[in-house]
Amino acid sequence: MFSFELYSKDPKSNARRGQLRTNHGTVQTPVFMPVGTNMTVKTLDAFDLTSLGAEIILSNAYHNYLRPGDVRVASMGGVHQMMAWKRSLLTDSGGFQIFSLKGLRKISEEGVKFQSHLSGERHFLSPERVVELQRNLGSDIMMPLDHCIELPSEKQKVLEAAQRTLRWLDRAVKQPRNEGQALFGIVQGGIDAQIRTFSAKETIERDLPGYSIGGLSVGEEKNAMMEMIEVCTEILPHDKPRYLMGVGTPRDLIEGVYRGVDMFDCVMPSRNARNGTLFTSEGKVNIKKAQYSEDQTSLDPDCSCHTCKNFTRAYLHHLFRCNEILGLRLNTIHNIHYYLELMRKVRESLDQGRFSEFYRQWISSQV
Amino acid sequence: MFSFELYSKDPKSNARRGQLRTNHGTVQTPVFMPVGTNMTVKTLDAFDLTSLGAEIILSNAYHNYLRPGDVRVASMGGVHQMMAWKRSLLTDSGGFQIFSLKGLRKISEEGVKFQSHLSGERHFLSPERVVELQRNLGSDIMMPLDHCIELPSEKQKVLEAAQRTLRWLDRAVKQPRNEGQALFGIVQGGIDAQIRTFSAKETIERDLPGYSIGGLSVGEEKNAMMEMIEVCTEILPHDKPRYLMGVGTPRDLIEGVYRGVDMFDCVMPSRNARNGTLFTSEGKVNIKKAQYSEDQTSLDPDCSCHTCKNFTRAYLHHLFRCNEILGLRLNTIHNIHYYLELMRKVRESLDQGRFSEFYRQWISSQV
Repeated sequence: MFSFELYSKDPKSNARRGQLRTNHGTVQTPVFMPVGTNMTVKTLDAFDLTSLGAEIILSNAYHNYLRPGDVRVASMGGVHQMMAWKRSLLTDSGGFQIFSLKGLRKISEEGVKFQSHLSGERHFLSPERVVELQRNLGSDIMMPLDHCIELPSEKQKVLEAAQRTLRWLDRAVKQPRNEGQALFGIVQGGIDAQIRTFSAKETIERDLPGYSIGGLSVGEEKNAMMEMIEVCTEILPHDKPRYLMGVGTPRDLIEGVYRGVDMFDCVMPSRNARNGTLFTSEGKVNIKKAQYSEDQTSLDPDCSCHTCKNFTRAYLHHLFRCNEILGLRLNTIHNIHYYLELMRKVRESLDQGRFSEFYRQWISSQV
Repeated sequence: MFSFELYSKDPKSNARRGQLRTNHGTVQTPVFMPVGTNMTVKTLDAFDLTSLGAEIILSNAYHNYLRPGDVRVASMGGVHQMMAWKRSLLTDSGGFQIFSLKGLRKISEEGVKFQSHLSGERHFLSPERVVELQRNLGSDIMMPLDHCIELPSEKQKVLEAAQRTLRWLDRAVKQPRNEGQALFGIVQGGIDAQIRTFSAKETIERDLPGYSIGGLSVGEEKNAMMEMIEVCTEILPHDKPRYLMGVGTPRDLIEGVYRGVDMFDCVMPSRNARNGTLFTSEGKVNIKKAQYSEDQTSLDPDCSCHTCKNFTRAYLHHLFRCNEILGLRLNTIHNIHYYLELMRKVRESLDQGRFSEFYRQWISSQV
């Protein structure tokens, strides 16, 4: 039920054009996946996402596990049914959220003990339970529990985390899934090329339907991140999708595609929208600034989204200043549209065999 | 440019069926006007309101005066242009908001001094300035500054406020307005039938295009409010629209229509929505309650709104518990739809000459 078809490769870069097929339809790649933490991409419903052209979204296993609970979600037909989302759904493993928790969290070979950030209640998740959790959520693409680390970390610690991630993966793959639910492998290894290479080679030995590149965009230099992406995509098989987890800025996406990444997710467009930072064809706009209070132009003259077609910068500024929820929503619609539209342009340039040209022009326009 | 046509009167009550015509189209009455305080009915944009079937909305002069400022709104083409609303717009005078302010506010014959609830900055509004303000906003229907009082108040105070309201009205009508902008008169008089009678008779002497019933739903008994409505509609001319300001519950609307009111506005549907209190054909639902956590039915099986057509009570409960903005929006869509649909049913029953029957059935269904 799950498949990936590679349509074409860019002759002058590692960029790829392809298509995922899941239980819930097809997804054109390279693709950006908006993040719907609590079964909503904040301020938007499933119909808004469909209107925006999203073909796949990400939801967080950790949040759904705590609220409303994966067993409850399962009893209500899964995340798709509950949020009325008809297209593809990827869930993360919760690993990254749990490793980011400030309070108690204790890692053992068995799994992860942690306290809920909501109630302080104690929980335990094993690699097996994390697969069961995502099975309950009804994910089309699921992630295994991985051992995430802070950067910088000592080499030995990075290696041990990568090794544990592999052992946990081997336990995860044995856990039953529903028909068509694809479990990806996650490559770890911090910013150490040797450990990344080890992790990538070992992970592909497991012959999984797709591969994630984890543990990046956690504070390291951009160059280091790009180098690690290159190390991974060099090793990962061409006939399987590559997913760069939690990345990133529009530029990160373009650079990732250039290096052979097919899938991205990030809270940046939605979170920035709620902070009033908007992505436009002419650079970032901070809509809070007084200079926009009487600006009757649309946010981005090159944009065809609902917000840009119908409202002025002055109105968005006014709504933001008044803390009006509608402002957060209109901003989110625009930023998500910006990311999805950027990827549509990337795919179009790949289809037309002119991605390298698009890449150069886009990068130079950002300076 | 402004007109009111009375289509029909219910034979067994004072209910009326009519149509307003403004610079921005027609409005079928009786009508409920959603409240868009800061140029947004909270969580909704103008297109949402159009989809919901709203033909007229109310915006608050006081809030628009403070932020972004009426002169700025005028320079940007008015409220219609700024919020992309193509249909009719009524604005209040700001009087009620100013009289509700806790801090400094000082009334003199000249006008009202007050401090902004946002910045503490001092302001002064006269009856003349209040008309200019609404002219700047581009309102289709504007309200004169009126002297609002608390209830209960001494008879002498109630009478003086009603008299001042009349003197302020006489100043307001002399202030220039744009073509087609209708200025209503406001009947005051607390819950004193004698003063209400005086105020109504004096106000209609000014021969205005419509009449508002102000100063009700401020804590008095329901019976007193209903009696005052009856006193006013008895006196107000049949060929002019009657607007009951700031009212009320669904039942208040039905009772108001029964007594001859044509127009209503209230924050109740939108504010309750944000508190999780939802109006349904089977009574109020408090979506926060744990009993809805696994309720896979739609909020109201009799409702055709976006929320009820597509989502379950369990999803609305989940969104509310997670403080998700989408929950507030889906709740608002439903509650506004409920109010607008109620008025559509009222108009339909009037068109079919069976309003009294509808009224009896509806009231008895609410017990």
